[in-house]
Amino acid sequence: MTYGQGRTYKKIEVIGVASSSIEDAIQQAVSRAQKSLDKLSWFEVQEVRGHIGDDGKVNEYQVVIKVAFELK
Amino acid sequence: MTYGQGRTYKKIEVIGVASSSIEDAIQQAVSRAQKSLDKLSWFEVQEVRGHIGDDGKVNEYQVVIKVAFELK
Amino acid sequence: MTYGQGRTYKKIEVIGVASSSIEDAIQQAVSRAQKSLDKLSWFEVQEVRGHIGDDGKVNEYQVVIKVAFELK
Amino acid sequence: MTYGQGRTYKKIEVIGVASSSIEDAIQQAVSRAQKSLDKLSWFEVQEVRGHIGDDGKVNEYQVVIKVAFELK
Amino acid sequence: MTYGQGRTYKKIEVIGVASSSIEDAIQQAVSRAQKSLDKLSWFEVQEVRGHIGDDGKVNEYQVVIKVAFELK
Amino acid sequence: MTYGQGRTYKKIEVIGVASSSIEDAIQQAVSRAQKSLDKLSWFEVQEVRGHIGDDGKVNEYQVVIKVAFELK
Amino acid sequence: MTYGQGRTYKKIEVIGVASSSIEDAIQQAVSRAQKSLDKLSWFEVQEVRGHIGDDGKVNEYQVVIKVAFELK
Amino acid sequence: MTYGQGRTYKKIEVIGVASSSIEDAIQQAVSRAQKSLDKLSWFEVQEVRGHIGDDGKVNEYQVVIKVAFELK
Amino acid sequence: MTYGQGRTYKKIEVIGVASSSIEDAIQQAVSRAQKSLDKLSWFEVQEVRGHIGDDGKVNEYQVVIKVAFELK
Amino acid sequence: MTYGQGRTYKKIEVIGVASSSIEDAIQQAVSRAQKSLDKLSWFEVQEVRGHIGDDGKVNEYQVVIKVAFELK
Amino acid sequence: MTYGQGRTYKKIEVIGVASSSIEDAIQQAVSRAQKSLDKLSWFEVQEVRGHIGDDGKVNEYQVVIKVAFELK
Amino acid sequence: MTYGQGRTYKKIEVIGVASSSIEDAIQQAVSRAQKSLDKLSWFEVQEVRGHIGDDGKVNEYQVVIKVAFELK
Repeated sequence: MTYGQGRTYKKIEVIGVASSSIEDAIQQAVSRAQKSLDKLSWFEVQEVRGHIGDDGKVNEYQVVIKVAFELK
Repeated sequence: MTYGQGRTYKKIEVIGVASSSIEDAIQQAVSRAQKSLDKLSWFEVQEVRGHIGDDGKVNEYQVVIKVAFELK
Repeated sequence: MTYGQGRTYKKIEVIGVASSSIEDAIQQAVSRAQKSLDKLSWFEVQEVRGHIGDDGKVNEYQVVIKVAFELK
Repeated sequence: MTYGQGRTYKKIEVIGVASSSIEDAIQQAVSRAQKSLDKLSWFEVQEVRGHIGDDGKVNEYQVVIKVAFELK
Repeated sequence: MTYGQGRTYKKIEVIGVASSSIEDAIQQAVSRAQKSLDKLSWFEVQEVRGHIGDDGKVNEYQVVIKVAFELK
Repeated sequence: MTYGQGRTYKKIEVIGVASSSIEDAIQQAVSRAQKSLDKLSWFEVQEVRGHIGDDGKVNEYQVVIKVAFELK
Repeated sequence: MTYGQGRTYKKIEVIGVASSSIEDAIQQAVSRAQKSLDKLSWFEVQEVRGHIGDDGKVNEYQVVIKVAFELK
Repeated sequence: MTYGQGRTYKKIEVIGVASSSIEDAIQQAVSRAQKSLDKLSWFEVQEVRGHIGDDGKVNEYQVVIKVAFELK
Repeated sequence: MTYGQGRTYKKIEVIGVASSSIEDAIQQAVSRAQKSLDKLSWFEVQEVRGHIGDDGKVNEYQVVIKVAFELK
Repeated sequence: MTYGQGRTYKKIEVIGVASSSIEDAIQQAVSRAQKSLDKLSWFEVQEVRGHIGDDGKVNEYQVVIKVAFELK
Repeated sequence: MTYGQGRTYKKIEVIGVASSSIEDAIQQAVSRAQKSLDKLSWFEVQEVRGHIGDDGKVNEYQVVIKVAFELK
Repeated sequence: MTYGQGRTYKKIEVIGVASSSIEDAIQQAVSRAQKSLDKLSWFEVQEVRGHIGDDGKVNEYQVVIKVAFELK
């Protein structure tokens, strides 16, 4: 990549869900997005939420991220 | 759906327009999105706007929503 | 277009990059989006950023916009 | 109206109050604004609030909107 | 109530859910809050969301509001 | 005033400047607005800024407020 | 208090009203909250509003604050 | 102007539209506002939007600004 | 739970503090809230802060969350 | 200062703490910043917080401000 | 630069002023910041404002940006 | 530290980058800031972003934080 040359990126919004950690939820979203899109470049966390089980334990993290990739 | 299992959702932004009410404008956007996407799960209202006719009556509501659906 | 009739629009988020000006970066994003989408209607600037070269000159503007188009 | 020609709009902030619905509160504000201004073009909802009666019923909706009109 | 006299209010955040309309979801939240609190004074809408059924119909509105009441 | 009856309010944005305190700057803005408008009802502080003199003392507070009044 | 040890705080939202100053309105809210809660720790101002009398004088300040206290 | 003396400013919200650049759209709004108001002092950009023609070219910039002027 | 049936939730704001990780601070807040409330449903992260020890190590994470539960 | 000439300002973020009033906390921050910086020009309040003593009295105001000064 | 390696950046907030265009005001701020800092990497526009002359012409753009550079 | 005594803090904005976790990225930023500043007191997370490698793995977390320290 050379700075200063015309380029275009697209950002999409995805939500990854994982039981273990915020980082795993991000990776879950990124891995799934990678399947249908050419090559992802970066992400930005928008929101961190989660579900609480009957035992009062956080049983999943739901992380909303924006993922960006170049439009060739 | 079982909580705690890895899942991914995508959110898209659509604008529904209807003359009757805010609720109809939301349904307009959801129905159209449903046509090209598998199965929608929830929506979040982002913005409510509208157009005013020459007679000073609100003649349409334009509601910007985010619609989410699971990526299988 | 007649006001008051049910219609739906979609908004996507794209980033245009150009070395000359903010306006060129917007046009870069719009032109690229036009290639794969039917007919764009309007845009909204979300963020203006840029890269600075070793000589301390802004060598590109990166403008994040939302682009809207009607879903027929 | 032709796109691309120099025009100017003004936005004012008004609050409509009505007992029946959010849509009626919007129309209340628009109708009153129309009395003293030439011709209104569109509105944007800023805030939705309301008052609760002694019986625990919402007895009015107070909707803050911005109303826009062209300055000829 | 006389303006200028020391008073204190408390605000709590509740979410009303109803299938029919945004106004009904607000009333649902207000009615339930009224049960355990002395006398509510006003509400402010924070967020409007909803669930979409398998048939692509909005089957409930979830409205997050803040409800305020005086602390005597 | 009776709750539930159709009413309309207008909000304007004014900036009061005073050397003594934030409260005086608010009153300065309210008093000036009162001159040209019928009867003001309430205000909402938007922003608090100020100027710093050569001696490092705050020599004025500039408070941006919205002032609301009923449109009869 | 020792840093690094598991602790939990709760924040509640209260509105203090006083005729004299913003500081008095904050103290009004804090004093009332102190009555029913064990021991308050800090506050954060959310919003400053007020009422304007018929004579164009600010006759009360309404300050929305969040008050935090430790859950033992 | 002397700092520290009581003064009041008013801010109004206008939208300038121009086909050439963001700067021209700002000037369009300022020039029109100047016609009916005594003497403007400063502006603050709120939003930058625009319309896209059938050929995929941005054919106008719509810039929402707040314009401030002193109330004598 | 059946979608479309009238329900009400309440959200409270709590701050969990833990030395090990952001996830532990969230769990700390959830566990404490669970003690005095019937059954929690989900959480939303509002703010992540922390304290820094004299040795320049982050010695605790302070995570502000909103916790929601159904009002039966 | 002449408008229209190239100039540059820097903004830094400081927190002033004082027991008496919000205005004193602002002055505390400004006076300390003035010590190490050439000449300050203006400030903008970002946040107002405070500590509550065991007796339920606000015993200090903590005001976060941005302070600006010209880079010569 | 290799992704994945520990690095630290600092962001400072500067305001560039120029009479000709928004882009020139950005460059003005970047050039001045470059003088006292090692090597700048990118910028983010925070706010665009300006001054209006007696003739109703925008006579300067004041652009608030954040500038980032690596801490070696 | 005694509450109620005049004190001043400064906040700076730094970005820590680490490949392992969000917590490590925060510590990376704090450790680097500690080198050139006397004694840090607390941090506040502003933004969490990251880079995605060609293999679709998050290969670094970039966490923007504000770090505060007392000005003696």
